[in-house]
Amino acid sequence: MFYPKKNYIEPFFKSPCPPALLSREWFDTFIRVHRHTTQFDKLILYHNTDHDQEVIFQHMDYSKQSIELHLRSRGKIEIRSKVSITTKEDLSLAYTPGVAAVCTEIGLNKEKSYTLTNRANQVAVVSDGTAILGLGDLGPEAAMPVMEGKAIIFKEFADIDAIPLCINSTDVEEIIKFCKMIEPSFAGINLEDISAPRCFEIFERLEEELSIPVFHDDQDGTAIVTLAAIINACRVTGRNIEDLSVIINGAGAAGIAIARLLMHAKVKDVVLVDTQGAIYEGRPGMNSIKQGIAAITNKAMHSGDLQSSMVGTDVFVGVSVGNIVTPAMVEGMNPSPFIFAMANPEPEIMPDLAYKAGASVVGTGRSDLPNQVNNALVFPGLFKGLFVSGIKKVTPEIKMAVATSIAYSIEPTRDHLMPTAFNKNVVRNIVDVISNPDEKRNYANNEPEELEELEVLVNSLLN
Amino acid sequence: MFYPKKNYIEPFFKSPCPPALLSREWFDTFIRVHRHTTQFDKLILYHNTDHDQEVIFQHMDYSKQSIELHLRSRGKIEIRSKVSITTKEDLSLAYTPGVAAVCTEIGLNKEKSYTLTNRANQVAVVSDGTAILGLGDLGPEAAMPVMEGKAIIFKEFADIDAIPLCINSTDVEEIIKFCKMIEPSFAGINLEDISAPRCFEIFERLEEELSIPVFHDDQDGTAIVTLAAIINACRVTGRNIEDLSVIINGAGAAGIAIARLLMHAKVKDVVLVDTQGAIYEGRPGMNSIKQGIAAITNKAMHSGDLQSSMVGTDVFVGVSVGNIVTPAMVEGMNPSPFIFAMANPEPEIMPDLAYKAGASVVGTGRSDLPNQVNNALVFPGLFKGLFVSGIKKVTPEIKMAVATSIAYSIEPTRDHLMPTAFNKNVVRNIVDVISNPDEKRNYANNEPEELEELEVLVNSLLN
Repeated sequence: MFYPKKNYIEPFFKSPCPPALLSREWFDTFIRVHRHTTQFDKLILYHNTDHDQEVIFQHMDYSKQSIELHLRSRGKIEIRSKVSITTKEDLSLAYTPGVAAVCTEIGLNKEKSYTLTNRANQVAVVSDGTAILGLGDLGPEAAMPVMEGKAIIFKEFADIDAIPLCINSTDVEEIIKFCKMIEPSFAGINLEDISAPRCFEIFERLEEELSIPVFHDDQDGTAIVTLAAIINACRVTGRNIEDLSVIINGAGAAGIAIARLLMHAKVKDVVLVDTQGAIYEGRPGMNSIKQGIAAITNKAMHSGDLQSSMVGTDVFVGVSVGNIVTPAMVEGMNPSPFIFAMANPEPEIMPDLAYKAGASVVGTGRSDLPNQVNNALVFPGLFKGLFVSGIKKVTPEIKMAVATSIAYSIEPTRDHLMPTAFNKNVVRNIVDVISNPDEKRNYANNEPEELEELEVLVNSLLN
Repeated sequence: MFYPKKNYIEPFFKSPCPPALLSREWFDTFIRVHRHTTQFDKLILYHNTDHDQEVIFQHMDYSKQSIELHLRSRGKIEIRSKVSITTKEDLSLAYTPGVAAVCTEIGLNKEKSYTLTNRANQVAVVSDGTAILGLGDLGPEAAMPVMEGKAIIFKEFADIDAIPLCINSTDVEEIIKFCKMIEPSFAGINLEDISAPRCFEIFERLEEELSIPVFHDDQDGTAIVTLAAIINACRVTGRNIEDLSVIINGAGAAGIAIARLLMHAKVKDVVLVDTQGAIYEGRPGMNSIKQGIAAITNKAMHSGDLQSSMVGTDVFVGVSVGNIVTPAMVEGMNPSPFIFAMANPEPEIMPDLAYKAGASVVGTGRSDLPNQVNNALVFPGLFKGLFVSGIKKVTPEIKMAVATSIAYSIEPTRDHLMPTAFNKNVVRNIVDVISNPDEKRNYANNEPEELEELEVLVNSLLN
């Protein structure tokens, strides 16, 4: 017996059928019919206390409800004081005259800003709004809801104070200058939703020129969590990562970074595909970033479109657009492939189709489907780890260690491949591996993940 | 009978004398002896519950205690979420996939960032750290404690979310560019502790080029609160502001802005004095800002040092350095002058000396002396008023109206000239006057200000 956690608006329909009637066939039909009503469908069922044993199906329209939530709360973040200011004495210590001594201390030794201000716990989340989610260039104002979302995830999962700074310039030099100007106020910079190929130069220059760590979530956040998903797919199926040939569709920020990290993790080969087909050394029409990645991937110099490039590979990674992969293309891969179709909101191929075509493990980027491959598993723990350890640069070794930590935070199954964002093992394990990289690790002490009651019920009904 | 609000460290000494022994003479002697032990002395006395009737004098070292406070809390601000994120559904609404619809809404109409994000309530507090309090150029890291202090004052008194951005450049064009880049994320910009004369050009250019309001607290915040203090000094003494001749020592950001606002408020005359003496039209060695102010002040074209410039004036305003004014200089002014000696931490002349030399009203910038002339009375209400009204530019008329609102938030007396920062009338009256500038106002409905118990006791013992 369980109860709704909150009231949702607009019941989809009310069905006075007892749970015993909910057969697998009934459910399958229901889902097939209603899945595509909007882009962001969700079924919620719960025990209704007013009508004993009645089950209600609600249609959860994320778009509408999210807009309502944002309107109601007027955004998602606020500033809070960590000290009391209720008396004149409080003000004299937190502000003038007392604060003059604090300023003087820092003036004499700038490093003290890490102990006398909030700097040590503060990340700037910087975006120019040119590549917002899968939506493209909507401008800096439109990036704010995502950056506020990241800020509350930073706070909730790693107790880090992240400040959204959506900026009014898309010029590489100006964005680099901007990040260098805010350096004294922050312990780290998280670049976000900046379009390729500018993001590569911005990131690389900042990694050179800043004295605080910088991280581009769309590159390395996605790469790390993808590697974690592949590690767990190997654990579930008993395969070795070194034996895997990987096809990546999409050669933007995420695709390039995934390819680099997988090559570092010693997969057998990677073939990147963009809108002109497979990327190979010497292919015409490539920018310098693609030329660079071509030199270390696609050892067989395969050329051709996505379908022909998928033939004979073991893993599909999609960071492109929805519904671009057909069941026939999955069937053309090696037997029992892994499919990570991470385009948002529509995956490259829906999980049910991929499974029917022979996939052994399927994941997507969506929170409302099983096996979400979710960046939010990476950035809170990663920054916490950097801040705790004082490490300034995220090396490929750190990325691989973080991916392993995320993967080993649970005992994966085919339908529960990845930890959820709420799994407290994740941040703890990431911080631990960054702080103590050489220690032998035993993940057996991880707390088992509590599945939500709802998820348990739905799974029990469906299986 | 009253009790300590908190425990202070390091009792100065413990005296087992009953309160009856605390004569006026005893107190005067005690204060005279101990006032200058450090720059930031403070006497606190309270009933000690452990030792019946014992009175303890504590020596409050603001510097040391402020550093301890900052170390303990690691700065003063943090980010908080305004929405719940405890379930997967919460995340789907606050972050992906739901947030995509919110971004799209704003992408189609940028103005919606004011209702769908925290922008409408968000101020950037921008400093380059070149003029921190009275301490000068200590760099951006050292400015952070002041900006965090402003942030918690913004939050406590006006529920505004202020974000400290201490930046690594002192170049006028770079600072202007920086403020224009962050415009999409904020509803207003508060410039702070940027040295003159750069601050004038930065402020004026931004007022032209930004579509959100900009305010330089060191200029107009100080000018507004100084005008409020002069208004209340007139109320207490029955004088008219139009009859007052004002001398201002210090021709930096604050001095220039005070002179401009007082001329607008139609004082009889203003003479500004810098390190080379009185500023008059055509004086050699002046930058363009000083040339501008010379053209509208010092009608008698007085030239000479501070002492000779003070002769025959009614109001001294000090925004310069400590202990530069002697009792003889006050005696040379017109009878019963107002003295506002606002240098920090040491005033231009200590209040007791100024009163002895004939001053009728004395104020300083210090929170631990009576009659503090405090910028914190201005900026929370001013930004709240701008945000509520949608006004983008702070005109001289608004500045005068805000000064009047602050002044009339209390019934002033000679020893209690200004409202405290905790007086809730202040923000309410400022917001009201900015939102409804033409309405006839009756301040009789103001709540009387509650003096702190401690203050009441000390006053009763001293008088």
